Formats: sequence, structure tokens, C-alpha cells
Amino acid sequence: MKNIAILGFGVVGCGVAEVIAMNHDLIASRLGEELQVKKILDIRDFPDSPFASLVTHDKDEVFNDPDISVVVETIGGARIAYEYTKLALASGKTVVTSNKELVSTHGVELMQIAAEHHCNYIFEAAVGGGIPIIRPMHRCLAGNKIERIAGIVNGTTNYILTQMAENGADFDVVLKEAQAKGYAEANPSADIDGIDAQRKIAILSTIALDGAYVDPTSLFTVGITAITTKDMEYAKEMNASIKLLAIFENSDEGKFAYVAPHLVSKSHPLACANDVFNAIMVTGNAVGDAMFYGQGAGKLATASAVVGDVMDAVEHGNGNAHVTRWYETSDRVLTPIEEHTVSVLLRLPDSISDDAIAEAFPGISCQPCVYEAEGEKAVILGKDGDLNEARLAIGLENFDEVRSVIRIF
Amino acid sequence: MKNIAILGFGVVGCGVAEVIAMNHDLIASRLGEELQVKKILDIRDFPDSPFASLVTHDKDEVFNDPDISVVVETIGGARIAYEYTKLALASGKTVVTSNKELVSTHGVELMQIAAEHHCNYIFEAAVGGGIPIIRPMHRCLAGNKIERIAGIVNGTTNYILTQMAENGADFDVVLKEAQAKGYAEANPSADIDGIDAQRKIAILSTIALDGAYVDPTSLFTVGITAITTKDMEYAKEMNASIKLLAIFENSDEGKFAYVAPHLVSKSHPLACANDVFNAIMVTGNAVGDAMFYGQGAGKLATASAVVGDVMDAVEHGNGNAHVTRWYETSDRVLTPIEEHTVSVLLRLPDSISDDAIAEAFPGISCQPCVYEAEGEKAVILGKDGDLNEARLAIGLENFDEVRSVIRIF
Repeated sequence: MKNIAILGFGVVGCGVAEVIAMNHDLIASRLGEELQVKKILDIRDFPDSPFASLVTHDKDEVFNDPDISVVVETIGGARIAYEYTKLALASGKTVVTSNKELVSTHGVELMQIAAEHHCNYIFEAAVGGGIPIIRPMHRCLAGNKIERIAGIVNGTTNYILTQMAENGADFDVVLKEAQAKGYAEANPSADIDGIDAQRKIAILSTIALDGAYVDPTSLFTVGITAITTKDMEYAKEMNASIKLLAIFENSDEGKFAYVAPHLVSKSHPLACANDVFNAIMVTGNAVGDAMFYGQGAGKLATASAVVGDVMDAVEHGNGNAHVTRWYETSDRVLTPIEEHTVSVLLRLPDSISDDAIAEAFPGISCQPCVYEAEGEKAVILGKDGDLNEARLAIGLENFDEVRSVIRIF
Repeated sequence: MKNIAILGFGVVGCGVAEVIAMNHDLIASRLGEELQVKKILDIRDFPDSPFASLVTHDKDEVFNDPDISVVVETIGGARIAYEYTKLALASGKTVVTSNKELVSTHGVELMQIAAEHHCNYIFEAAVGGGIPIIRPMHRCLAGNKIERIAGIVNGTTNYILTQMAENGADFDVVLKEAQAKGYAEANPSADIDGIDAQRKIAILSTIALDGAYVDPTSLFTVGITAITTKDMEYAKEMNASIKLLAIFENSDEGKFAYVAPHLVSKSHPLACANDVFNAIMVTGNAVGDAMFYGQGAGKLATASAVVGDVMDAVEHGNGNAHVTRWYETSDRVLTPIEEHTVSVLLRLPDSISDDAIAEAFPGISCQPCVYEAEGEKAVILGKDGDLNEARLAIGLENFDEVRSVIRIF
């Protein structure tokens, strides 16, 4: 019998208990012994839950119980979850989490505490929900240099963008609808401003760089709040979808990580991820493109990833570290984003002349867009790899009115 | 320093040596020690290869060398590869392979020999080439009951079907072109008759059933040789793609595994896998749909999966078994395919009346297809889940001429 505890009985924590119950016999057969949730720590009571009898408000019942070898942290955030994770690791208990904020903020320290206490801090569920991505990248693709990661990693924004594209509805309208359906929070900022995606690509970038810590707050991040129905019109005419992409690149040009909306060709596999689905394309120098697609959020899907980690931790004692230990370095890990080359769709009022654009972007390749909405001038800049973020910013300052700037994937 | 040997210096074997060389420092940093190909066993010489000095014709130099702890089998087939795999395992050397024929045919016995000699038989590269699928399914999705697997797992047939759809060309024409480009073998039977896909779904099914051995030769298998440009016309009108799907299902209805061409809606993520790319959709009762996409064949992509396995074997000694050990059971593992319910597109000459169809398929739901080519009658049978393979076969016998029967995914 292997005993675990769940900290935080919210949507995912509850999902973990449900998955373990639902697949009890299968899990026992695969592990060679039963897996049991022994305690659930929460400040609330859940009188109607089938798991009510497991709920405790006393953290000592978890952290001081030698029978509990693995702890699931599904509290979320970086306050209580941070304190309790440190407590669990310091007690030699492996912590399994879905908490992208905590992992991306304190991962270095937490992995250090885990190493010191011969246990692990593991977090497959923190990126891509139920989609296997961290373990495949770390283990299956271990023979590769990871050259690029491009992911649709936030279900809320992907839902909004899909609905805008399919229904021609305004951003505000679709956001409200998403909130009503539970696909967006009451305070949706973390999702629509790209913060959630930023945390996830920071995690994946750190793994791709074999543990060199990438601070999420340092990443160039643009959310989807400026996307309009007019942008959607352009995407449709260009046979593309607008997707919020979280990207990591590692080439001769440098190491970059950033989040921004991009026009993605409809024939690209990433474009097949719609609504709340996520997809992460990893490019390795041996494997080429490998894409991982599935439910990036949701109770049972995220719980699936947590339970997979729990089973692995339980089976391998606490010896089988999930990922290479993260470390901070005084050297700059990423190349300044200003040096990153981009190609963009630039939409301007049609009062702007071609000459004005050429003057604003000297020496930058400029092609007319295949489509221009009425009253607009639309060009594709930088397709020849001659436009970087610094020059883009400088060039844009030349115009009083810029309708839209969307990067092209 | 960890030493390995490569058996068979064909495309994949050479790819393995290349990947290890290309990423030498990265691999060494990840393993904490160097990974070196010490010997390459082949009957041929390769005087122009940078690896020529490693080539030996003497198997004792591999099997009797205690320095070599892991052996890569990239000979292919089930004759010499079978003998050498047994030899290596009996010497306590873990064998890593891409050989789907050998794994699907002799996996039970080979895993038994491995277990007896405290080493492992591992084969991520045997299914989906470079795409991580076996390890994610076995580890990351361990908390799930696998309800369905649907895969485009053969690049040759996917290339042919994609080209037929895009260019309106005949099967024979595209096959010759594929052979010229190296996407199809001179004897293409294993691919176009579905045998390769059959072996791969047998492997995946066995894993999904926690080791209950599924014999590939027992699986209902239809290849793509009967697909015509007329079928492609129908697919286009139905907004679908014709894909050769390898499918495993585990539900109340039973356990099934089979290979056949299917009409797949263009809006389904599986339809985004074109040309030589593969995609495998796995459905678990917690994670929902998770899809793995990438290069299902090719030198470096397949080598990527082999090297990932080699690194794992080298890192974990020979203790970390890749998959649950396979076993044979006298009980029937799969439900008879006759009981499997299907929905099909049925194309007949237009001389056939609605009544004749109703008589041939009493009590089976029947809808007109949204499209009918000139001179034809086309219907969708069994959409209500009321048509099984047995009744389909019986019903088809009523007609002197059946233009086409394509299953609908």
C-alpha cells in the first residue's frame, strides 16, 4: 500500500482523487500494490464529497506522517503552496504538482531542497495539462539538441481566438462567454495577458537548456487583448489562424523565449489545435518536428498527468529525478530579445505611403500582404530575416497610428 | 565512458552513430559520462564511412565484450536479428531496437530472456519512428485506462494517400513516384498491404493491455491497394481525408485491434498528418484525447528514439524496464473482429435500388451520402452503431459489383 496526500482540494486536487478511485484496480495492478489517498489537506470542508473523510485541516497529519511518501500540491499560487512544498520536501516527501506559477518562480530552490532530502519535485502537469510533454522532452528526446519549441499552451486564449475566428465575434463578447462557460477566470488577466503561457515556456526553456534557469518575468510577452475581428479577417484571407504562441529558440542566432500572437498557416499542424486544446511542437536536431497535442487543462486531464508522476515516484522510490536539476547562473541565459528576428504583418491606415514604410524600415524586406481591408495598407515585413525586435520597435515609432502588428510563424 | 555496439549498419544503424557523434558533448553532459559506439557489427564493409574503423564482422567482439553494456539492433527482420538479440540478452546486455517485426513477433520470448538476465529489451523506435509514443503511453498515461488508439503509423502509405488526394493521381503512379523518392521499398507490400501498420498496432495494443500479447498476424488488416481516385473524389466532397488507420479499442463492446483505410474528417487532428508524417491519437479515460505527431520514419528521426532509449538504459543500469513484461495467455485477448461495429461509405452502381440495399442490410441505419459520383449510388451505413463486421460482410455478398467500402472514423 502506497499512501499519498493531496494538498488543496480544488478542481485538480479533486480530479486526482477521482482518477485514483476510478482506476484503482488498474493502478494497483500496474504498481504491484494499491495506491491510496490517505489525507487531503484543505482549509475548507467538503461534506458532500465521497472523499470527505480524508479531509484534514491539520498539516501535521500530512507532513509528520512517515506513511505518506508522496505529496500532491494542487493548491496553486506561490504563497501557501510554496511554504507547504518546502515543508514536504524537507520531510523527504516527493512533491508532485501542476502549479506552473510555483515551478517557474521557485523551481531552482525547490529542486535543491528535494536533492538535499533525497526526494523529488516533479511537475509534468504544470505544462500542457494532461499532454505528456516534459517527460518525453527530457527522456525520449534526450539524444537531441532542442532547437525550437512552439506551443499553444493556454486553453483560455485558444478558446477565445478560435471562437473569434469561427463566429466573427468581438474579443470582449467571446471573453464573457468563455467566463460563463468556465473556460476563463473572473479575473482573466493571467491568461489573456499571456502570463500563464510565459510561465510555461519558461519551464520548457529551462528544461531544453538542461536546467539553466529561465526567469518567466524576464520574457517578452504579448497577450491577446489587442486582437480584433479585423485581424481575424486578415488571418482568414491569408489562410492562417491567429494563435498565442509560446516560443523557445536555440540557434546560431541566439537563445530566445517569448510569448506573442502569431499568424499560423492553416496547413501547419499547430493550427489543428482549437478551442481549449493545446499543442506543443518540439524541434530537435535529430527527431525534427514532434508535436504533442491534447487537453491542456481540465480536471481529469490535468489529474492524469499528476497521477502518472505519482505512480512513477511511488514505483522508483524517490530516486528517479524527473528532470535535470535546475540551477541559476550569473551568466545571461537568454539573448536579448531585441536581437530576435521576426516577420510581421503590419496594418496601417492607407494614408501611409510605401515610401513612408521604406523610410521607417530601411533595408528591411517589405511585401504587400495578399489582402488589405478597406482603408488600410497591409505589408509583410522581415520575411528575409532582416527585421529584429529592436528595429521593429524603432520603425513603429514613425507612425501616429498602427492598426496592428502580428508576428508570422 | 559507456560503450555500446550497433548491430546492422543500415540507414537507422548509421543514423544512431551519427546522432551520437553529432550530439556527443550534449549527451555526455546529460549522462555525466561519454557515450561511445565501440563496435559496429555488419557483414559489409563501409570504407567511406567515418565509422569504418568500428566495423567488425566478428560477433564475439560484441557479445563477449564485458565493456559493452547496451546493444542496438538495427538489422531488421526476424531471422539474424532474432538470433543476435537472444545472444545479446543472454549475455546480460540490454537490447534497444527499432525492429517492429521482431518485437511484434517474438516480444514475449525476448522480454523473458531479458528478465532472466537482468537486462531489458526496449523499442520506442519500433512505433512512430522518432515520435515519443511508447514511453509516454506507458509512463505518463499510467493512470489511465487506454480506451482507444488510432494511428497513422506508416509513412509510405500516408505519403501515397496524401499525393493521391492533392494531385488526383492514380495509386500506381504515386507508388512508382514514392519508390523513386525512397519513400517506398522496391517490394512495397509490407507497407501498402498494411502489414507494417499491423505490427505497430499489435505492439501498442499489447502495451495498452499491460502486456497481454496481441499477435499481429491475427489482426484484421486491409491495406490501401484498392483506394482509387474516385474514392479521393468522395473524400474531398465529404470534407475528409482517406487515411490508413491502425486502431485499438477497449470498451464495453470488447477489445479490438485492426488496420483499414478510413475517411477522417478534415477537422480532426489526425487529418493534419500528411505525407510521410505519422500521428497517433491515444484516448485515456482521464486524459481524454492526446495525440503524438512527427516523423514516423527516416534516419535521424528513428535514431533519435533509439538514442533516447540507449541513454535511459545506460543511465539506469539495466534495471528500469521500459514496459511491463509481455506474456501470452491461453485466453482470447481480443474480441472477434466480426463483433466490431463500424460505419462505412458504400459505393455501388446506380442500378442498385434503395430497396436492394435495405434488403441486404435489414435493420441497419442507412443514409444517402452527401455526394454521389455519376453512375453511382453512395450510402453511409451503420452510423447508429448497428452495423458490425459480420453483418457488413454478409450484406456485401448480395451485390455483384461493389465499387468501394471505406470505413468512417
